[in-house]
Amino acid sequence: MTYCVGMIVDRGIVLMSDTRTNSGVDNISVFKKMFHWSVPGERMIAVMTAGNLATTQAVVSQLEERAKVPDERDNSLLTAPSMFQVATDIGRLLRKTIAERQNANGEKGKGRFTASIIVAGQIAGMEPRLFMVYPEGNFIEASHDTPFFQIGETKYGRPILIRGYDREMSFEDTVKLLMVSFDSTLKANLSVGLPLDVMVIGRDEFAPIHQHRVMHDDPYFQAISSGWGDALKNAFHSLPDYTFYSE
Amino acid sequence: MTYCVGMIVDRGIVLMSDTRTNSGVDNISVFKKMFHWSVPGERMIAVMTAGNLATTQAVVSQLEERAKVPDERDNSLLTAPSMFQVATDIGRLLRKTIAERQNANGEKGKGRFTASIIVAGQIAGMEPRLFMVYPEGNFIEASHDTPFFQIGETKYGRPILIRGYDREMSFEDTVKLLMVSFDSTLKANLSVGLPLDVMVIGRDEFAPIHQHRVMHDDPYFQAISSGWGDALKNAFHSLPDYTFYSE
Repeated sequence: MTYCVGMIVDRGIVLMSDTRTNSGVDNISVFKKMFHWSVPGERMIAVMTAGNLATTQAVVSQLEERAKVPDERDNSLLTAPSMFQVATDIGRLLRKTIAERQNANGEKGKGRFTASIIVAGQIAGMEPRLFMVYPEGNFIEASHDTPFFQIGETKYGRPILIRGYDREMSFEDTVKLLMVSFDSTLKANLSVGLPLDVMVIGRDEFAPIHQHRVMHDDPYFQAISSGWGDALKNAFHSLPDYTFYSE
Repeated sequence: MTYCVGMIVDRGIVLMSDTRTNSGVDNISVFKKMFHWSVPGERMIAVMTAGNLATTQAVVSQLEERAKVPDERDNSLLTAPSMFQVATDIGRLLRKTIAERQNANGEKGKGRFTASIIVAGQIAGMEPRLFMVYPEGNFIEASHDTPFFQIGETKYGRPILIRGYDREMSFEDTVKLLMVSFDSTLKANLSVGLPLDVMVIGRDEFAPIHQHRVMHDDPYFQAISSGWGDALKNAFHSLPDYTFYSE
């Protein structure tokens, strides 16, 4: 499994992903699920992937044209005229990659090669945009009503995102909110695991303004993880008490 | 969908269930999912059900022998020698009911009639017990390590249960904790809905010591629901702030 969140705030976009991949519970590896490409001053595009690892690696490799020798590569993401076109291209590539694997494996391949991708970024002269691309190749865009997308193991970490989101949040608070959401997920599901990757995309910056890998001994994440239990207990006790007998 | 939680504490057992059943999003009804039977001073047995409604209603009706005329009915739950035997009987009945529907419907019926049941109760001279009965007819029992079971839409409401549980809690705090867990689930999933049923089974009481139906206008649940958002925000702000640059 996987857990990735992309969240859009007034100041830009914050992305966070875990790095655990597993096939069963005893074949666990660390793989990056967050990738980005930028043209300084002009565009910044990032993706996060969930689903079949061979599928998502194939999509990223094809985006980078790794089948060609380095001199002949021409990443279409770096020339697409808009983020809408970027999402369209990634969706087409994702659908095609899944279909090839499925067709090659007949009935047995059904549903096994599926994946989803969160696409975030900004191109100069346009707004920062955040998309969720489905395995079918279509996609939806985040808005003020739905300002974040999650992929993978999404449920455990969702209530705090719903409750804590505020579009005027600082980037620091946004990262903190995502860390709490990841901590709740990590506590509940073994298939989501450290290290975590964090990236902050500032409006009109066209390069990551912050990147961080949260390792097992990260003192801030440890403080969030141990502090959140106590903070929740205090929150719980601050609510009115239940009584069996109403007056 | 459904959401039910059974939680065992030192003082006894607390059960909470929603009442929404749906087939798609436009065929929504209210059905009780919590049932209990008691022999004053001797035993108290309660079940909560999730899954196919026809299956779970058939199981409950068979437990009560509703196919017979009232005078000939003999609820085996009221004569079983132990809670272990009660769980065994319910498991056998559940597995048989599902198998009958599936066999009658061939390939098309596969997986459609499945259900799970939480069984709670106490028989005089023995401890209060809490079981989770699977569609296959087997079951597991709660322990100090795993003191609660959830069925249905379990993920959204799980983090707060993990963080908030304390076996020495009062019944009032246990009900409050479950209400917070239900509120998080209701906020995230349309297929779980009010009203909610609450029941408290006190150790050595052999009758519900508290029963309550939480309706849409329940002032306590409204206070929890609106207060929890603020309490979470305060909890969030009480945690150390993230900084982009470490010293």
